Amino acid sequence: MKKVNVAIWGFGAMGRGIADMLLTKEGVEIVGICDLNKELVGKPLSDLTDIKYNTAEQKEIYVNNDIDEVLEENIDVVYIATDSFTAKTYNKIEKVIKAKTNVISTAEEMAYPYANEPVLSEKLNEIAKKYGVTVLGTGINPGFIMDLLAISLTGAMIEVDSIEVRRVNSLSPFGPTVMDEQGVGITLDEFNELNDKGQLAGHVGFKESIYMIADALGVEIKGFEQQMKPIVTGVDRKSKYGFAKKGTLAGIDMTAQAIVNEKNFIDMKHPQQIEPQMEGTDTGDYIHIKGKPDINMSITPEIDGGLGTIAMCANMLPHVVNAEPGLKTMIDLPVPRAILGDVRKQIK
Amino acid sequence: MKKVNVAIWGFGAMGRGIADMLLTKEGVEIVGICDLNKELVGKPLSDLTDIKYNTAEQKEIYVNNDIDEVLEENIDVVYIATDSFTAKTYNKIEKVIKAKTNVISTAEEMAYPYANEPVLSEKLNEIAKKYGVTVLGTGINPGFIMDLLAISLTGAMIEVDSIEVRRVNSLSPFGPTVMDEQGVGITLDEFNELNDKGQLAGHVGFKESIYMIADALGVEIKGFEQQMKPIVTGVDRKSKYGFAKKGTLAGIDMTAQAIVNEKNFIDMKHPQQIEPQMEGTDTGDYIHIKGKPDINMSITPEIDGGLGTIAMCANMLPHVVNAEPGLKTMIDLPVPRAILGDVRKQIK
Repeated sequence: MKKVNVAIWGFGAMGRGIADMLLTKEGVEIVGICDLNKELVGKPLSDLTDIKYNTAEQKEIYVNNDIDEVLEENIDVVYIATDSFTAKTYNKIEKVIKAKTNVISTAEEMAYPYANEPVLSEKLNEIAKKYGVTVLGTGINPGFIMDLLAISLTGAMIEVDSIEVRRVNSLSPFGPTVMDEQGVGITLDEFNELNDKGQLAGHVGFKESIYMIADALGVEIKGFEQQMKPIVTGVDRKSKYGFAKKGTLAGIDMTAQAIVNEKNFIDMKHPQQIEPQMEGTDTGDYIHIKGKPDINMSITPEIDGGLGTIAMCANMLPHVVNAEPGLKTMIDLPVPRAILGDVRKQIK
Repeated sequence: MKKVNVAIWGFGAMGRGIADMLLTKEGVEIVGICDLNKELVGKPLSDLTDIKYNTAEQKEIYVNNDIDEVLEENIDVVYIATDSFTAKTYNKIEKVIKAKTNVISTAEEMAYPYANEPVLSEKLNEIAKKYGVTVLGTGINPGFIMDLLAISLTGAMIEVDSIEVRRVNSLSPFGPTVMDEQGVGITLDEFNELNDKGQLAGHVGFKESIYMIADALGVEIKGFEQQMKPIVTGVDRKSKYGFAKKGTLAGIDMTAQAIVNEKNFIDMKHPQQIEPQMEGTDTGDYIHIKGKPDINMSITPEIDGGLGTIAMCANMLPHVVNAEPGLKTMIDLPVPRAILGDVRKQIK
């Protein structure tokens, strides 16, 4: 059986992480990498990874800035790891679909694109079916912790009254882009100004997670709100790429609520900051579901956001190859699982 | 759209619980109940449930001891809740398949029948495909806690080195059959005698959970062992249906290990007893997976075994109706989820 061939469009932290992970797996080959970054274009994969791989199995390839050339290869799945928003990544996904190739997207909104982009979602579903390919967005959050995992726990419940998901994580492992997006080191005045202008990204994904849960359980959201609050540090905090002086922001605390039947049905809490333990904050993922029976789940510490997203994207590879054509979300496909053996054994 | 019609074969604690739960859901109707128990035969459903249901939607039906008569109805799914072992329930499943009807089985071994009955599993898969129906076994354990939930957590991992699952639960809510199966109240001598003769059931499901995990992740089990130890109580313990005098068994502690690549890859620990808190045992479900990254999950207290199994069976109804024909397991289908809206909305 031939190997599963993948290409990666966007060779930043996520794209590179997915490549590193797939290089350690059997039965899969990276046949193309596309990125516009001039420092990367033309470089061989072997220079861009520390992974020791079998050079008889994985041919040398070079970063290409021309996606049309990359798509000329025989590819089973293209990873698109370039954007956070559906509207921004739409044309890229459409291009890959029209090359009759499956897509896995790291864009947060693509984890449940129906939440913010119902029209584009329908279009993607239609053209994916027309060209006979599958499109999936996934990641650790949205994609798993604050949605799919909560959904699967409700499977053991007779009734569900309310769902609270809290992800308390450390931003310390992340790079300069995330430090900017999460306002690490800015003053309260700067936070207020950026927040008023809507220029602070914070977490992208509450609406996606909430609509995924609601659609899975069969309830209708009648109201959705989200809030952003500064996490002001009382001590100097320093991480690899971030620094927050005492009195400035160590990160952002985001919350969201969804109303079903005139009451709060879903509550989401997601404070993100560098070095949370310096002021006594323990990190973890917490899901509390009230109903029959109540379920109280904790994962401590939290599942690492970077590794988790890379793993979710790489591990869904066989499910996407196996799936029927169309735009799929995590609630349509079998449960995610680590790939330990040959990827081809998981292909039907 | 017509309602989803179900029948229930075996009206013990599980069958009755599934009926009670489905009576609270929209878009589903119970059209048949089969049981041989003389105290039940001929009784109306309305006498056997405390659930207030819409009598315009749910017609009155009567417990029938003739499954052939029950199967004459137009049924989408038959729940078979009569046995723990595949070999014992095989003929019943075959009969329902040949009536061109989908099956959900509560038999523990049916959660992953390939583990103990590969030949029967292949036969079930073949005839299910031939008659165009789906067969699924599920429950809280096996079916969820010690297998599917652990599998889904590995989806967020790049590498997995080992998996430990521990389910510490209370037997206090259970009835006289479970008290017998778990040796509650017997002496150490009685335990040793029953154990030597293999007459103590204990937990049925380790092998099923372990093979489900291994197949999902793509590794091969090279060795499997399980052990049974008495939990001797230091105080008198009393539950609704059980009594363990000081010095006798409050329950049984079961453990299992699976070898992959010459080392312990999966460890399972499942002590079950009445009134565990009387000697300081806190109940809970715990999954510790070592790898990249490590994942430490706790659910405290444990998900109730009775409610959990009823919920899993009832909640998988739409997935089974939607699935392609054949023998399926929980790793083949989308993640379980609570049914809160009309069941028909979940049918494709």
